[in-house]
Amino acid sequence: MKLYERIAEKLTQLISQGYYPAGSKLPSIRDLSKEQGVSISTIQEAYRLLEEQGSAEARPKSGYYVCQKNTPPKLPETSRPVQRPIDVCQWNQVLDLLTSHTFCSKDWIFLGRAIPDFHSATLNPLLKTMANMSRDANHFGIDYEQINGLKQLRVQIARQMMHSGCQLHPDDIIVTNGGQEALSLSIRVTTKPGDVVAVDSPSYYGTMQTLRSLQLKALEIPTHPETGISLEALELALEQWPITVVQVTPSCNNPLGYTMPDDRKEQLYKLAQRYDIAIIEDDIFGDLAYSSTRSRTVKSYDKDGRVVLCSSFSKTIAPGFRLGWVAPGRYCDLMTHTKYASSGCTTTLPQLALADFMAQGGYERHLRKVRQHYKQSRDVMLDWLKRYLPENICTSYPQGSFLLWIELPEEIDSVELNRRLVLQNVQVAPGILFSATGKYRNCIRVNYSGEPSARQETAIKKLGEEVFKMLDESENKQ
Amino acid sequence: MKLYERIAEKLTQLISQGYYPAGSKLPSIRDLSKEQGVSISTIQEAYRLLEEQGSAEARPKSGYYVCQKNTPPKLPETSRPVQRPIDVCQWNQVLDLLTSHTFCSKDWIFLGRAIPDFHSATLNPLLKTMANMSRDANHFGIDYEQINGLKQLRVQIARQMMHSGCQLHPDDIIVTNGGQEALSLSIRVTTKPGDVVAVDSPSYYGTMQTLRSLQLKALEIPTHPETGISLEALELALEQWPITVVQVTPSCNNPLGYTMPDDRKEQLYKLAQRYDIAIIEDDIFGDLAYSSTRSRTVKSYDKDGRVVLCSSFSKTIAPGFRLGWVAPGRYCDLMTHTKYASSGCTTTLPQLALADFMAQGGYERHLRKVRQHYKQSRDVMLDWLKRYLPENICTSYPQGSFLLWIELPEEIDSVELNRRLVLQNVQVAPGILFSATGKYRNCIRVNYSGEPSARQETAIKKLGEEVFKMLDESENKQ
Repeated sequence: MKLYERIAEKLTQLISQGYYPAGSKLPSIRDLSKEQGVSISTIQEAYRLLEEQGSAEARPKSGYYVCQKNTPPKLPETSRPVQRPIDVCQWNQVLDLLTSHTFCSKDWIFLGRAIPDFHSATLNPLLKTMANMSRDANHFGIDYEQINGLKQLRVQIARQMMHSGCQLHPDDIIVTNGGQEALSLSIRVTTKPGDVVAVDSPSYYGTMQTLRSLQLKALEIPTHPETGISLEALELALEQWPITVVQVTPSCNNPLGYTMPDDRKEQLYKLAQRYDIAIIEDDIFGDLAYSSTRSRTVKSYDKDGRVVLCSSFSKTIAPGFRLGWVAPGRYCDLMTHTKYASSGCTTTLPQLALADFMAQGGYERHLRKVRQHYKQSRDVMLDWLKRYLPENICTSYPQGSFLLWIELPEEIDSVELNRRLVLQNVQVAPGILFSATGKYRNCIRVNYSGEPSARQETAIKKLGEEVFKMLDESENKQ
Repeated sequence: MKLYERIAEKLTQLISQGYYPAGSKLPSIRDLSKEQGVSISTIQEAYRLLEEQGSAEARPKSGYYVCQKNTPPKLPETSRPVQRPIDVCQWNQVLDLLTSHTFCSKDWIFLGRAIPDFHSATLNPLLKTMANMSRDANHFGIDYEQINGLKQLRVQIARQMMHSGCQLHPDDIIVTNGGQEALSLSIRVTTKPGDVVAVDSPSYYGTMQTLRSLQLKALEIPTHPETGISLEALELALEQWPITVVQVTPSCNNPLGYTMPDDRKEQLYKLAQRYDIAIIEDDIFGDLAYSSTRSRTVKSYDKDGRVVLCSSFSKTIAPGFRLGWVAPGRYCDLMTHTKYASSGCTTTLPQLALADFMAQGGYERHLRKVRQHYKQSRDVMLDWLKRYLPENICTSYPQGSFLLWIELPEEIDSVELNRRLVLQNVQVAPGILFSATGKYRNCIRVNYSGEPSARQETAIKKLGEEVFKMLDESENKQ
């Protein structure tokens, strides 16, 4: 055992014996170094190990703290969607969700949409750069950019993705109008109308509406809330149906919050190889993983260019930038044409500003800040749910991002639940949006990206009250 | 004859008798009012009439000037494209044009691309607003917007389009990622793969590449350089082929510069009605017409929602904003879904800034400035062509925008011509880009949006020299 490991073990004991309770500050690196008579770097190594083990967390400019050890919530079971290819429905419900906020005043609590915290001070340098660049005398910010996007930005993206095990060249990347265009182009280049696309289930409604728009059929694959899409079920489906591509969100999944273990990601890739299908990997939340080391992308196992990796800065920076990107692998030439034909170049100024922000280290700083904030908010949210909702609910246990999936008792119709909450200025996303056939009617997705506040707590309280009321009504009916 | 008409007539006589030569300043409104003993407003009316008649032009903060009366150039004949539906080719050539500027240094003269003058001081208020809004503490500029775009911007667009005879409600409009997305969505909602789309010819390569991307066939219709798409040829084609939609650019056409007379626009609409097909009207250059009153859009005749009107601020303001829009008529619901599925919302900050700029009158001021500048540049460009190119060339006579079509002698291969010019840091757009089958090989399109300069003149001189050289070579071969 090395010296730093011994020190880490000692600290772990002290934590488990209650000397340092959850949430308390651990000794400073300097103090501990003096006390133990070892070098600063040894203590740093020890803390890094604790962090990796999930016992301690660094807070910027403050030091190391003992992690809140939540008992993980009771998880939903593996999903059991309809096992045949179907046309995607639910557009009206999606439209409702997307447009609801435009008619409402500011005292609303929108738990339904996947909007990140974009009020963090760590974004200020980016906005300042935007402001300066928009007044630049050369007006570069309002000229056309290259079809595949600003070179400097693609360089930064390639660098960033090295953390996920990807060796991307900047020319392997195409910048898009948000993640939605990345997904839409990916689906277009890998399919033709009438094709069957396998998806994890529940699945992001934006992708499913794209399937609908392109006259494709969705085949929803059973998905486990910790390990992701069932490879066994997917293989059975591949035997039975003419599937051309599988679309998954394997890291910080939306809506289930899981991150597929690396070995299952690799198995997924091998399965795709065996059946010669493409994989569309939505990694939009990947940079928001709570763990100190980012898990690998399926793309990182890709040897023959069949994995199309999609991402965006809409969930990590701000949605209004509309900056996404895609690494299209073997589909690069076709996608360049499809991108040009669909929307030409992508808006210039935000690309310039973001490339600069990333090069200055601002993106990493911002990520560190929001990851920690989201993790803390998750725990607060789980506490509130314990306090205000029936005991027998199941919830996801997100390993990243800011979205929580709640499985309510069978009797609850979440569309009706949301209708009632809307009357009280609270909005949630009904589960049916996340299925092609309107399954998950008793589920909802809620957003915890905002700083935990009394207003947020009140919203969850209202949610709980309505659920109890609906349960009572259902009992009285019987 | 009214008083102001009498004064206008007198001035016209003085101009034609040479008292006020072309380009000279006319008497100030105040002086003329004193001299004639009539009211200021009468003189203003008289000048407005002269402006309408094309004899005088207003220059901001300076007064009225006698227009340069160019002899209109010799126009090309009505085009004669292949009369059957075909797959669009030429992608590699388009890609060449689109990417060439990214590898070149700044001393190049890019005459090939349709990039407007975005260095005009009249854009400064817009850029200032952008800068202020990007630092706004509420961060509205980086939040999601509505799928169909910012309400305030759609209100401004609806108002602006009243000048073209359109009665649009803001909810009839969807804001898009540039004109290219507007066109692409329009084609998607009016066709299915395999359909035949009729287009004017020569035609904008961006639209044609979209046809290719959607597996549609193009049927190029003969087009006259003054009156536009031949309605007679279109009717014959409608009899013969299963055309589902006709795509035209009837105002300030790209590349031919003509504006279809209003009555022909109406006839086009009636023809579409009779054969029950849709019309996609690209009006991207419409606001850049040189005439003091804007001509009508085909959309302004639309009674049953079959006209899908597309436009953009890429040619009037700046391309890097990527703000286009579409009024989809009867296809509005389907297009909302297609837009969401393709790229979600459109970037927020430029929408906010542009809406404000338009509301403050900045857009109108900017248009007045650039229209006049483009018109003057056109005349300078035509002079240069007379001076430096063979006598027997034909050119378009643009009634708006900043693009000129040049038909060179049959012997000239413009792809080769461009290759030679590129070695001298000059670039033009070869004519083959504007045809699905690679016709117009002896034509080029040049851009005159920049302020006429010695560098520009040198570029045209080089163009002329290469043309003469190639003619010599061709003669020696025979």
